[in-house]
Amino acid sequence: MDLHMGRIAKVQEMMRSTAYDALLLGPTPNMFYFTALQTSPDERLQLLIIPAEGSPVALLPEMYLEKARSVLGELFRIESWSDETDPFKLAEAHISAIKGKCLAVDNTIRADHLISMMKVLPAAKFDSAGPLTEVLRARKDEEEIRLLHEAAKMADAVMARVQGQVKPGLRERDLVAIIEAEYKKVADDLSFKPIVASGPNAAQPHHSPGDRLLEAGDFVIIDCGAIHKGYCSDITRTFCLGRATDQMKDVYRAVKEANAAAFRALETNSSLSGAELDAVARRVISDAGYGPNFIHRLGHGIGLEVHEAPYLVEGNDLPLHQGAAFTIEPGIYLSGQFGVRIEDVAVITEDGPRFLTAFSRDLVEL
Amino acid sequence: MDLHMGRIAKVQEMMRSTAYDALLLGPTPNMFYFTALQTSPDERLQLLIIPAEGSPVALLPEMYLEKARSVLGELFRIESWSDETDPFKLAEAHISAIKGKCLAVDNTIRADHLISMMKVLPAAKFDSAGPLTEVLRARKDEEEIRLLHEAAKMADAVMARVQGQVKPGLRERDLVAIIEAEYKKVADDLSFKPIVASGPNAAQPHHSPGDRLLEAGDFVIIDCGAIHKGYCSDITRTFCLGRATDQMKDVYRAVKEANAAAFRALETNSSLSGAELDAVARRVISDAGYGPNFIHRLGHGIGLEVHEAPYLVEGNDLPLHQGAAFTIEPGIYLSGQFGVRIEDVAVITEDGPRFLTAFSRDLVEL
Repeated sequence: MDLHMGRIAKVQEMMRSTAYDALLLGPTPNMFYFTALQTSPDERLQLLIIPAEGSPVALLPEMYLEKARSVLGELFRIESWSDETDPFKLAEAHISAIKGKCLAVDNTIRADHLISMMKVLPAAKFDSAGPLTEVLRARKDEEEIRLLHEAAKMADAVMARVQGQVKPGLRERDLVAIIEAEYKKVADDLSFKPIVASGPNAAQPHHSPGDRLLEAGDFVIIDCGAIHKGYCSDITRTFCLGRATDQMKDVYRAVKEANAAAFRALETNSSLSGAELDAVARRVISDAGYGPNFIHRLGHGIGLEVHEAPYLVEGNDLPLHQGAAFTIEPGIYLSGQFGVRIEDVAVITEDGPRFLTAFSRDLVEL
Repeated sequence: MDLHMGRIAKVQEMMRSTAYDALLLGPTPNMFYFTALQTSPDERLQLLIIPAEGSPVALLPEMYLEKARSVLGELFRIESWSDETDPFKLAEAHISAIKGKCLAVDNTIRADHLISMMKVLPAAKFDSAGPLTEVLRARKDEEEIRLLHEAAKMADAVMARVQGQVKPGLRERDLVAIIEAEYKKVADDLSFKPIVASGPNAAQPHHSPGDRLLEAGDFVIIDCGAIHKGYCSDITRTFCLGRATDQMKDVYRAVKEANAAAFRALETNSSLSGAELDAVARRVISDAGYGPNFIHRLGHGIGLEVHEAPYLVEGNDLPLHQGAAFTIEPGIYLSGQFGVRIEDVAVITEDGPRFLTAFSRDLVEL
C-alpha cells in the first residue's frame, strides 16, 4: 500500500509544480500502477480522480464496489454508480469541486468517455497525462526490473520450446496456437497476440498470421511476449527453415550487428537519447545497403504496457536514464521476399545497460 | 467489397442528413465493419477519414502499407507515415481540406489521439460517432446473424465440454485455462477473458478469477464467449457443485424465470424498449424478493464488440427492432454468500425473437 501511496504523492507533487489541477485515470495500466486495482475495461465509466491537492476519489460501477473497497480502501474515497444512472453527472460533481480547471487525461481511456466529460465540464481544459504518467513509469524501480526480468525469462523459455516445433507444413496460425499454449504454461498471460510471419509475409512487420504453410527456405519471424504480475516482455527471433541463401545470411548479419551495436553504444554511454540510439542501429543497416528497408523505429519502452515511453525514434531527443526499459529491435524487410527482425528487452541499471532477454541471436537453420 | 462500399455509402448518406461533416475511425471494430481491415491497435495513429461527400482517406503507419493496399485498395486513398514523422500533421492536412468542421469520432479510439487531433484542429468540433455507427451496427443483416449464431453454437459446445470438468479442488484460474483451451479448439478467439466465480466470489458480477479452490456446495458462475470471423458470443451458466440448499434453489429459480420472462415478453412484442425489457426481468426478481440484489442492467447488444448498442437498461427508451442482437442476463448476488447469473444471446428476426445460445438453463447439481 505504501508503494501506491508514494506514487500518488509523487504525481500530486508533480501536478503542483506544473499547470495540472487533477489527473483523471481510467481502467488502464495507469490505474494498476497507482492503485494495484485491475478491472475489466468496458463502456461503463471507471474514473479515478487524483487532485493536485486533497484526497483522491474513485467513481466505479456498482459491480466493482466490493473489490474496490478491498483494494482501494485506504487510498481513495469510493463512489459507485448503478447501470441506471448517468456516471458523467457524478464525474461532473466531483471534478467541478476541484480548484482549477486543467485536467490531465489518461492516454488510453476511450474517446467517447473524454467527449462526455468535455460536455459536462465545458469550462475545463483537458490535456494529455503523458507528461505526468510517462515520466514516472519510465523510471523502473528494482522490483519492477525484477518483474520485467522474470517476464523476459519466460519469453526466452517459450522461444526455446517453440524453436523445436517450427516445421515445414505447419500453418502460421498453428504456430501461434503453439506459442499461446507455451505461454499459458509459464506466464499469467501473453503481452500481445503473437506474430508469426513466414516467407514473403515476413516482409510485413505487423503481419497477421494466417493459413500460409511454412516451407523450406523460409525465414520465420516469431514475435511474442509474456505478462508476469502486470509486467510485459517482448522478444523476436527469426529462424531459417532449411538453408539460408547468401542474401538471407547477409541481411541476418546486418540485423544482428545493428542489435549488438545499439547495445554496445549504451555500454559506452547510457545517456544517449532515443533518437541517437536509433541512429546507431540505422547506420549499421544503411552501411550494409538496406537503409530503406528498416521501416520502423528501433524500439519502444516496455513495462506495464508492451509499448510505452521511452521510444527509440528520430525526434526523441530525451536522454535515456537509469530505470529505463525498452526494446532494441532492428529489422530489414524486402517486400515480396523475406524479412528479419531481432528484438530484445534492455534496461539501464546503475551498472549500465543489461539485456533482460538472452535467447541466442545467432542464425539458426532448422 | 460491395458490402463495405455499401456501408460507407450509407454512413455518408446519414452524415449528409445530419450535422456531421466527416467520420474519423481508428483501429477498432468500426474499422473492420466499414472496411474488413484488421490491424493491431497501438500508440501509432491509424485513422480512416470518411467525409460526408467525396472519397475516404486512410492514414496508416508505413508497416501496414502492403496490407492496407490489398484490403482497402478500391475503397480508400491510402497515405502512410513513417515512425519519424508526426502523423497528426498529416491528419490536420487531410481533415482541414474537408468542407465543414463537425467531426464524428469513433467511440473507442485512444483519448491521447483525440487530444492531439484537437490540438492541430482547434476550430473543429469533435463529437461522438455513436449516433452514426451504433445505429448501423445495431441492425444485423442475415449474414451477420448467421455468424453470431455460429459463435453462439461454439459457446454452447464449450459450455458442454466445461460442465464435465468442473470439479472440487480446481482453482478458479485452472477452470479459466480449461475454458480458454476449449475455445482455442473451435473458435478464432475468445470474446473476453472468461469469468469463473465460485462460492462467495460469485456475488461479484465481474469477479477476477483467482486461486480460490472450488468446493462442494458452491455455485460456480461461468461467463465466456467466442469470436468467430469477428463476431462475438457471450453465455453465462451457473452450476452447483453438489447439492443446492433451498435458498440457492429459490434464487436460481428466480433468475431462470427472469431470463424466460424477458424472452416471452419479446415474443409478445418485439418492439419493447431496452428499458421495458429490463423492467420485465427486474419485476420477476423483485417479486421473488431479490430486487436489490440484481445490481446490473439486463443486457447489452452484441456483434463485432461483446458490448455494444442496444443496452437493456432503464433510460434506454428506444424500441428494439429486427436485426437487434443482445444478451439477456439477469443475476442475483448475495454479498458474502453466492451469486447466480443466466445469460443468453438473443436476436430479433423477422419471425420474432430467437435465442442463439441454447445450452440448458436448468439447475445442474454436479
